[in-house]
Amino acid sequence: MAESSDVKVLGSWPSPFVLRARIALHLKSVNYEYVEENLESKSELLLKSNPVHKKVPVLLHGGNSISESLIIVQYIEEVWSSAAPSILPSNPYERAISRFWAAYVDDKWFNALRATLLAEGEEAKKAALAQVEEGLALFEEEYEKLSKGKPFFGGDEIGYLDIAIGCFLVWIQVIEKFSEMKLIDEANTPRLFQWADGFSSHVAVKDVLPDVEALAQFGLKLRAKFLKTPQ
Amino acid sequence: MAESSDVKVLGSWPSPFVLRARIALHLKSVNYEYVEENLESKSELLLKSNPVHKKVPVLLHGGNSISESLIIVQYIEEVWSSAAPSILPSNPYERAISRFWAAYVDDKWFNALRATLLAEGEEAKKAALAQVEEGLALFEEEYEKLSKGKPFFGGDEIGYLDIAIGCFLVWIQVIEKFSEMKLIDEANTPRLFQWADGFSSHVAVKDVLPDVEALAQFGLKLRAKFLKTPQ
Repeated sequence: MAESSDVKVLGSWPSPFVLRARIALHLKSVNYEYVEENLESKSELLLKSNPVHKKVPVLLHGGNSISESLIIVQYIEEVWSSAAPSILPSNPYERAISRFWAAYVDDKWFNALRATLLAEGEEAKKAALAQVEEGLALFEEEYEKLSKGKPFFGGDEIGYLDIAIGCFLVWIQVIEKFSEMKLIDEANTPRLFQWADGFSSHVAVKDVLPDVEALAQFGLKLRAKFLKTPQ
Repeated sequence: MAESSDVKVLGSWPSPFVLRARIALHLKSVNYEYVEENLESKSELLLKSNPVHKKVPVLLHGGNSISESLIIVQYIEEVWSSAAPSILPSNPYERAISRFWAAYVDDKWFNALRATLLAEGEEAKKAALAQVEEGLALFEEEYEKLSKGKPFFGGDEIGYLDIAIGCFLVWIQVIEKFSEMKLIDEANTPRLFQWADGFSSHVAVKDVLPDVEALAQFGLKLRAKFLKTPQ
């Protein structure tokens, strides 16, 4: 067990980005306190800790606050560098590739995921679903290159890209439910299908994943609220 | 002089993102070949090297291709880690803060910069200029904390955040010219004003900065093209 010296995560249970921080801490066996934020009425601590974006997750560690999920994951890797496993590969090129795909997830793929839920009109939703599938096809291809026959993008253990993509797996299940189609399945994405199973049942992951039914209910509420608000 | 083992940058002279890669290589004294791309007719090499985004900059190094400017800068730091200076701070918290502000630049501030040039209507442009100024006020504040009285965000030497923000300095001059207002000046942003001067005249920077007049001409052409194309 790595030393924890007052570590806190400010989070919100449906947030895939919060999951990233928590999974990284679990991987490194860091003890931490999880604080559920009410995003309708954000705490003073959250507003003070992330004054620019006012968003979760925030990692509080020894008087410092760190925001932005991928930056938090890298921070955890660097602070608890001696605790196995290494979250980022040691090879600079492999690190760059992991960062590239993680940036793709946040800059492109996440917008498509979000649009499957929040876009207005069937055409827009269909286009978003196609973009989600396009991303999954790319991940399926990359998985073969990066995992080198091992169970994770990171090899033998969950790594940076596993966390970056894997945090969305329950949301994928929600989208599958709403759209009545399979996005990750044995026929089209056989490697991701197996990877998803290994990721979701991993000891650092399984206890922090939200319940798919609860998340679906949350998704419906989010959608109702979003479509009522003028954009 | 660090070992260069066939390093190439695929770039485009008006791109601030390409500057990032070049400045990092100059800082580390890495020899490289700069290849100017014609973005109207992209080379096979560019399309093959960055098939997902098809964008510059691309760093080619020993058979590998690396895309996305901040990822390239981190790659350069990690590959030529023994060549001074260190581009990222050694302290994990300071690294996280540098990454946080660099992400702010790319995710928020850049959009505002872009909109000052490409937004339709005076109101939209005014709003974009206000956002640019808001960002500069934040950088002014952070500079005091991060530089600790030294000439750069990175301390004695140009670092990650200097590169992330500084690559836009000539574009800021272009926007100042178009908007007929000063964005970085001695009265409102005295620290950035001094920093900008030190950055732009640095030996790793001055020779790769585009000419402000040429960039302004390019900006006008970009704008004419953009406003003609339905979005």
